[in-house]
Amino acid sequence: MQRVGFIGLGRMGGPCVRNLLKKGYEVRIWARSPEKARHLVEAGAVLCGSPAAAAAEADIFLTCVTAGPDVEDILLGEDGVCRGARPGLICADMSTISVSAARNLAERVAAHGAFFLDAPVSGGVRAAESGTLAIWAGGDASAFAGARPVLESMGTHVRHLGPSGSGQIAKACNQLIVSASLLAVGEAFRLCEAAGTDPARVREALLDGGSAAGFVLENQGKRMLSSEPDTGFTVRLLLKDIRQVMEQRAKTGAWLPLTEEIAALLEDAVEQGGGDEGTTRLFRLLSSPDRCRGSLRAEA
Amino acid sequence: MQRVGFIGLGRMGGPCVRNLLKKGYEVRIWARSPEKARHLVEAGAVLCGSPAAAAAEADIFLTCVTAGPDVEDILLGEDGVCRGARPGLICADMSTISVSAARNLAERVAAHGAFFLDAPVSGGVRAAESGTLAIWAGGDASAFAGARPVLESMGTHVRHLGPSGSGQIAKACNQLIVSASLLAVGEAFRLCEAAGTDPARVREALLDGGSAAGFVLENQGKRMLSSEPDTGFTVRLLLKDIRQVMEQRAKTGAWLPLTEEIAALLEDAVEQGGGDEGTTRLFRLLSSPDRCRGSLRAEA
Repeated sequence: MQRVGFIGLGRMGGPCVRNLLKKGYEVRIWARSPEKARHLVEAGAVLCGSPAAAAAEADIFLTCVTAGPDVEDILLGEDGVCRGARPGLICADMSTISVSAARNLAERVAAHGAFFLDAPVSGGVRAAESGTLAIWAGGDASAFAGARPVLESMGTHVRHLGPSGSGQIAKACNQLIVSASLLAVGEAFRLCEAAGTDPARVREALLDGGSAAGFVLENQGKRMLSSEPDTGFTVRLLLKDIRQVMEQRAKTGAWLPLTEEIAALLEDAVEQGGGDEGTTRLFRLLSSPDRCRGSLRAEA
Repeated sequence: MQRVGFIGLGRMGGPCVRNLLKKGYEVRIWARSPEKARHLVEAGAVLCGSPAAAAAEADIFLTCVTAGPDVEDILLGEDGVCRGARPGLICADMSTISVSAARNLAERVAAHGAFFLDAPVSGGVRAAESGTLAIWAGGDASAFAGARPVLESMGTHVRHLGPSGSGQIAKACNQLIVSASLLAVGEAFRLCEAAGTDPARVREALLDGGSAAGFVLENQGKRMLSSEPDTGFTVRLLLKDIRQVMEQRAKTGAWLPLTEEIAALLEDAVEQGGGDEGTTRLFRLLSSPDRCRGSLRAEA
């Protein structure tokens, strides 16, 4: 059985490690704050003293963090994974980072005789817990084939999309469509409220045969109308992802007017102090009169 | 069995009349250009000399046209439906018109002792043909109950959403979310192309477990990538619907920034001569360099 290293034990990574352990994998982990790894050590993971040590006997190394520089540091820093790597190690990065960062890492990891796959995920904490993530991989096809059994221990929708960066392109597309849908569903509900129509009944109607039906209307739409706090994916994290779409847009010169508007609205929401709210609070946050600023001033 | 009158024998209305005839309803029709009704007369419909004549013995009167003024003319004009209506006639308008026009018609039809339901539909020509439309009704609940069997002969997702205008609110929400999704999917595919990634593979991946999954990515997304001409719902008709959302926005003062951007992009596309193209050609139309103008100039 392949041996696995894992760094990034947060709300997404933690459940992934548990799923790997359940499947019988030996998982060596490292964490900047070792106390955060305790529950995983109790579940059977082996805590190591550095990324290099966690990589020492690994066949596959997984990272699941927030930003590109963190991945770079973990893989290529002093005491990084590549320092401890055996030849042919396959690094699969489940973080959402930019396409160019992924391509750059792939080249630099290859210089160490290892492989790098960009392998961002979709589905959120619930899918991480249930092992039903979607995982979109870019990079060398044989490295993907090697990583596949491990990836399929965490996700039920695992696909190879092409060369390095392809996984991040797919994730960027997903986040672009999701953010447009989130804002559109928010605006639709606002339209209902302004007209005195119950948005919950409209949501149910649209989901039942309407062409507006989809994952966001179904799931985030339900949470938008709930009074429960939204502890899910935050506005700040969505903004991070959309900034990466904008970076890719700048690199390629692609004309993406809706994405530009979305990016501006997310920047507004974070500037207004809403970065740590769940994305389902996004539209309410933006349209709340006491937080008005930026493009909101027109209406004020 | 209830007797039905029907006006609006186009690509949506024509198949609806056929489905009513198949279910055994007697359907009396009227058309400004009688030759366009011939295929329906051959299928068993009775062609009448005026809207009033088509309404003379009807229990339910259906209209399925493009614009509010047409509905008004058919129902309330000289020789209109209300002139020939028996007391208690239920008019159900399947057109997509503004909320205020629907509410206004409801009041004026009521003054004639008849009922008016706004009952816009979703699902397109295919759903009209297969009798699987979604139909979202607003208006008097007992009138809805009376019209229900007839509506269910044309649609499998028939719902009453509340008082007059509620059906049009639901339709407005549907069109708002669909137009945002159409543009977002277009931009996502453009992002793929600019990065050298196959949009068809990305589409398949996102549909398989991605949070971007939905009706538009599935159906219109497929047609966007097809080389077949798109003979479906046109950009002009979508713009008409979004203008009605904007009208509702102006009436209520609701802040809908994404909708504003979408409306501007659709206006651009129509001004560029793309009004008669299918909506799945929308993004390609907007981003085609030889048609650049309006907000496109920034990139040119």
